[in-house]
Amino acid sequence: MRELDSQAIAAAAERQAGLTKPAGSLGELERLGEQLSGIAACCPPPIPSRPLVVVAAGDHGVIAEGVTPWPQEVTGQMVDNFLAGGAAINVLARVVGADVVVVDAGVNRPQPERDGLAILKVGRLTGNIRIEPAMSRDEAAELVDRGRRLAEERAAGGVDLLVTGDMGIGNTTPSAAIVSYVTGRSPQEVTGRGTGIGDEMLAHKVAVIADAVGRCDPSLDGLGIASQLGGYEIAVLAGVMLGGAGAGVPVIVDGVISLAAALVAYRIEPLVRGYLVAGHRSMEPGASAALEFLGLRPLLDLNLRLGEGSGGVLAVPLVKAAAGILAEMATFDSAGVSEK
Amino acid sequence: MRELDSQAIAAAAERQAGLTKPAGSLGELERLGEQLSGIAACCPPPIPSRPLVVVAAGDHGVIAEGVTPWPQEVTGQMVDNFLAGGAAINVLARVVGADVVVVDAGVNRPQPERDGLAILKVGRLTGNIRIEPAMSRDEAAELVDRGRRLAEERAAGGVDLLVTGDMGIGNTTPSAAIVSYVTGRSPQEVTGRGTGIGDEMLAHKVAVIADAVGRCDPSLDGLGIASQLGGYEIAVLAGVMLGGAGAGVPVIVDGVISLAAALVAYRIEPLVRGYLVAGHRSMEPGASAALEFLGLRPLLDLNLRLGEGSGGVLAVPLVKAAAGILAEMATFDSAGVSEK
Repeated sequence: MRELDSQAIAAAAERQAGLTKPAGSLGELERLGEQLSGIAACCPPPIPSRPLVVVAAGDHGVIAEGVTPWPQEVTGQMVDNFLAGGAAINVLARVVGADVVVVDAGVNRPQPERDGLAILKVGRLTGNIRIEPAMSRDEAAELVDRGRRLAEERAAGGVDLLVTGDMGIGNTTPSAAIVSYVTGRSPQEVTGRGTGIGDEMLAHKVAVIADAVGRCDPSLDGLGIASQLGGYEIAVLAGVMLGGAGAGVPVIVDGVISLAAALVAYRIEPLVRGYLVAGHRSMEPGASAALEFLGLRPLLDLNLRLGEGSGGVLAVPLVKAAAGILAEMATFDSAGVSEK
Repeated sequence: MRELDSQAIAAAAERQAGLTKPAGSLGELERLGEQLSGIAACCPPPIPSRPLVVVAAGDHGVIAEGVTPWPQEVTGQMVDNFLAGGAAINVLARVVGADVVVVDAGVNRPQPERDGLAILKVGRLTGNIRIEPAMSRDEAAELVDRGRRLAEERAAGGVDLLVTGDMGIGNTTPSAAIVSYVTGRSPQEVTGRGTGIGDEMLAHKVAVIADAVGRCDPSLDGLGIASQLGGYEIAVLAGVMLGGAGAGVPVIVDGVISLAAALVAYRIEPLVRGYLVAGHRSMEPGASAALEFLGLRPLLDLNLRLGEGSGGVLAVPLVKAAAGILAEMATFDSAGVSEK
């Protein structure tokens, strides 16, 4: 993985200044255009035409603690829903012209092979992170590696923009634990209501997360974090980010689960940060804590808290727009427009 | 123009609750889906497939007061740029799959007929609103009517989503004046730096706007406001909103110029408000004042201050997404997904 190309970033800033618009008037799109130029190591950067959403699904042993009102079987049922095209992420991906690949990163049921599904699992249910590691270090390393190879293969096949999404009943619990562990914020600060839980369950969830984080050695590296706190889909998504970045592909991250994966990826390779685009600001408090830690400013803020990559995929047109501005807009000179 | 259909809105809220997602987890998209259902008077509402950006251009006599560093000729030069496809709005419209029609609402130069251009002008330069009306009441009525008919004709031709955009050197001045007049906020509160002016010019601009507003009878109706404070493109855009709403087409409004037009339209027919979707929060303070007055919550907040409909058109995918969710997502029942 290489650092963003500072010459391309400077060229983008210079080009923005000559385009037929008041200086700086495209706000965040200009900043994003500079980042895309740095990633592509050229200005203008290519306009992404083959976006792919990777929706990784996994199950979580910690739900034995009662941190969610949803039954575990929903994870697998939603995998079926994704493959049938009926979930929110399918609708939103169609709207923005993105493909979807579903990853079984560790769903707790037998999984027949089907079109649109990549089965990358090494286990079916993580350990209960309140009392034990989510998985072994070898399993975490293997999942990160499988996610990385998936992204590399897709990039080699022409995918030029990745979006990370997740499905996993209970997965805001490991995500908040990772955010708390990496950012140093208290479990209370970073734990939210997930899919909608009451005050009593929330207080219990905070206690479970505090125990999970408290169990961890304070000097864990990225794989250690994924191993101790989980989950399977988070490890795969961290790998997807590393693989995408390594292949020079921008990666739009979704909400708190994707951001927990981003923290794991960042602990493995800090350079990955430059390749990440924050799609939206999830309502989960852990998302904002992770965004701040990573120095990412989200493009959208629509009070979403669904996961699946729903908030990430909605940012795809904005990434295309930012690249398109640099690639296709006329300059004052070329259009014969007077300057002030 | 009819009120939004409350039965369709209720049906949308009920449908959202049965879709395969946690209740309320799509945030603003759910609220928008209800509005679109109310506009279409059915649930699910159609997914817009023929969005059109109307970019209305006009020139402003008030620039004689020195409220902008840009020369007036830029308005016409940018019309040429729009028609050549090299402006920001062209790039962004291509990204989201929208068409663009440019309206000469009153540009201060001869205007040959060209493809993609609608010449609706009744004059070439508004009066200097610091000391005189922008145009006669008859001219204002004629421009609103021409804008209305343009929208009606396009809707009859299949356009199912409108976006309003503007071009006009100096047009943040009449816009801020209208916002101040209608909302009752002081000129200082609602006047911004437009395309980027310094402190001295800003203070002068506030004084010019205060004089313009102070000149007006306090009981002006919508046409009176457009006549006294201008501008040509604002009158046309007010008509576009009224025509779109009358034809049952949602209208995405852009920044402060479009919002000033929305205030004029609202003073002509308050029901228009239900058909408006705020595309983004412009950096101009008058935009936020108008949004609050109209009770509109913007979808995007990207620090844009360009105009042309740039912030509006970026919201097109979000409108499609909101309709798509209602039209295409599976329910818990249909997908066989367990509920909590």
